[in-house]
Amino acid sequence: MEDCFGGLEAGGTKFVCAVGTGPSDLRERTEFPTTSPGETIRSAVAFFNACSSHAKLKAIGIGSFGPIDLHPDSPTFGCITSTPKQGWRNFDIVGAIRSGAGVSRVAFDTDVNAAALGEARWGAALDLDTFVYLTIGTGIGGGAMVNGRLLHGLLHPEMGHMRVPHDRRADPFAGCCPWHGDCLEGLASGEAMRRRWGMPGHLIPPGHAAWSLEVNYLASALVNLICSMSPQRLILGGGVMQGLDLPALHDAVRELLNGYLQAAPILDHISEYIVRPRLGANAGVLGAIALAQSAANP
Amino acid sequence: MEDCFGGLEAGGTKFVCAVGTGPSDLRERTEFPTTSPGETIRSAVAFFNACSSHAKLKAIGIGSFGPIDLHPDSPTFGCITSTPKQGWRNFDIVGAIRSGAGVSRVAFDTDVNAAALGEARWGAALDLDTFVYLTIGTGIGGGAMVNGRLLHGLLHPEMGHMRVPHDRRADPFAGCCPWHGDCLEGLASGEAMRRRWGMPGHLIPPGHAAWSLEVNYLASALVNLICSMSPQRLILGGGVMQGLDLPALHDAVRELLNGYLQAAPILDHISEYIVRPRLGANAGVLGAIALAQSAANP
Repeated sequence: MEDCFGGLEAGGTKFVCAVGTGPSDLRERTEFPTTSPGETIRSAVAFFNACSSHAKLKAIGIGSFGPIDLHPDSPTFGCITSTPKQGWRNFDIVGAIRSGAGVSRVAFDTDVNAAALGEARWGAALDLDTFVYLTIGTGIGGGAMVNGRLLHGLLHPEMGHMRVPHDRRADPFAGCCPWHGDCLEGLASGEAMRRRWGMPGHLIPPGHAAWSLEVNYLASALVNLICSMSPQRLILGGGVMQGLDLPALHDAVRELLNGYLQAAPILDHISEYIVRPRLGANAGVLGAIALAQSAANP
Repeated sequence: MEDCFGGLEAGGTKFVCAVGTGPSDLRERTEFPTTSPGETIRSAVAFFNACSSHAKLKAIGIGSFGPIDLHPDSPTFGCITSTPKQGWRNFDIVGAIRSGAGVSRVAFDTDVNAAALGEARWGAALDLDTFVYLTIGTGIGGGAMVNGRLLHGLLHPEMGHMRVPHDRRADPFAGCCPWHGDCLEGLASGEAMRRRWGMPGHLIPPGHAAWSLEVNYLASALVNLICSMSPQRLILGGGVMQGLDLPALHDAVRELLNGYLQAAPILDHISEYIVRPRLGANAGVLGAIALAQSAANP
C-alpha cells in the first residue's frame, strides 16, 4: 500500500472529502451537504475509513469554515468558535476527525487558507509568495499567503467582515450579516443577493442591476485588500463569481485606484492580477491535501 | 572609531536623521522640513558627513514617504514614484544619499515599514511576528510585519488609501485625496481635518465633533485591517493621534466587531491591542537605523 493523504474541505454549505497526493492523483472524492455535526462528520469519517482500506492515510488536512481556533496550545484548538451556524459552535472538528478516522496527524486551517495553499502549490499562485484567495459564495471569506507562509496572526483573516462604502440611496438593503449588518458579507455575499433580489445569484441574469452593485462592493473590497496587503495576485472563487463579469470588476478596481499604484500588474495586466482559481471547485479539498502533506513533511 | 549606523526618516513634512545603534545609543539626531529634493538631501548628506568624521557609518537605512520602488532589480529601484509632492516624483533618494554620504550600503523601505521594524526591535511589538503600524498625520500610511518579516508584496502597503463607509449626511466633506477623494486619507488625515474644520488637528479642542468623526473613520479602518490581516497588535502613531481619545477608539472598534472575533486581546485587553508607539517620535528614525543594521548583518 502506498502512502497518501486525506483532504477535507469543511464548508458551511457542503463538505468535500478526497484522498490522493495532488490534482493529477486525486484517487477518491465525495461531497455532501453540511447538516448537523454528528451526521456530517459520520459521512466524512465513513469516506476516509473506506479509503484507508486500500491506501494508508499518512495525514488528513482540514480546511474549515470559521471562525476557528488555530492555536495549538489553546484548550479549544481544533474547534469552530463563534459561528452562527446551528450546532457547530464550539464543535471540535479536529478531534472528531482524528478519532473517527484513526489518523493521528491532522492539519487544520481555514477553508480559504487551505484553498490559497492549493493554488500556491498547483494553481494560480505557483510563482508567488504574497497573494490573497477570496471566496464569494453563500458567505465571503479570504485567506492569504505572505512571504511564502499562510497568514494567521492573532486568529486568521476574516475578510468578509470588512466595512466598505454603502450608499443607502443606491442600495437601501440594510445588509444581512447577523453580526455586522452591512459589512462586505452582509452586502455582497450570495445570501445578500438572495435576500435583496428574492432569488439566488445563479438565477440572476447578466445585465441585471444586481451585478453592477456586486461589482462595486467587490471592487471596494479588493482595493482595501490591495492597499492593506499589497498582494502579488488576487484569486476569486465561490459560487457568486461564476455569474460575475470579471472584466467589469477589473475596470472598477482600476477606476477606484485611479493610477495611484504604479505597478504593471495593475496598470497593464489586471486580467492576470485578479483571476479565478485554477483548481476550480477542487481548490479547497486539494488545499486540504496540501495541508496534510505539509504536516507530514514539515 | 567604532562602527555605527545612519538612519533617515524621509517624511513628506520633515526629515529626521540620526546615527547610533539603538534607542539607548542615539548619538546624533537632527530634523528639518522637507522642501525641494536638492535642498533637503543636501542637509541630510551634510549631517551624515559630519557624523562620519567621528564614527564610520557601516550602512544607512532610509524609511521614505511613498509610493516608492523597492524592487532591487527594477530600473527605478530607490526612487519615490507617484507622489503628488512637488519635485519628488521619480526622485532617486537612495542614489542621492549613497553618493552624497559616500556609504555604499543603503537599505530602503517605506517610512511606516521602518517604524514597524523599530517597534518590533525596541518598542511596542517586541514579542510579535504579525502586526500593523499605522501613522495618522498630514497623510495616513501603514506598514506591517507578517510572520516576522516586513510586508512588501507587489509594492508595499498603502493603507491610507483604503475605502471606508462615508455617510455624506453626517459628513458632507467630499474628501481631500487628490487621487481618490474620500478614501481613508481623504477623510481622516490631518489635512482632511484642517480642510474640513478650517484649523489643524492640534488646535481642535477635545469634545469637538471633529474627534468623534475621526474615531469613526479610524475604527472602520482598523476593523478592515483586523479582518484582512489578523494582526496581533495595531500601533498608531502620527500627529493626529496625539489629540485623539484612544479609549474612545477602542470602544468604537469593539462595537463594530460586535464580538465576532473571539480573541482575548480584542474582547478583554483592547488597550494593549491598539496602542501608541513606544518609541514615540523616534520610531521612524530608529526603524531606519534597524533597516541599516539588517542590511549590514542580513
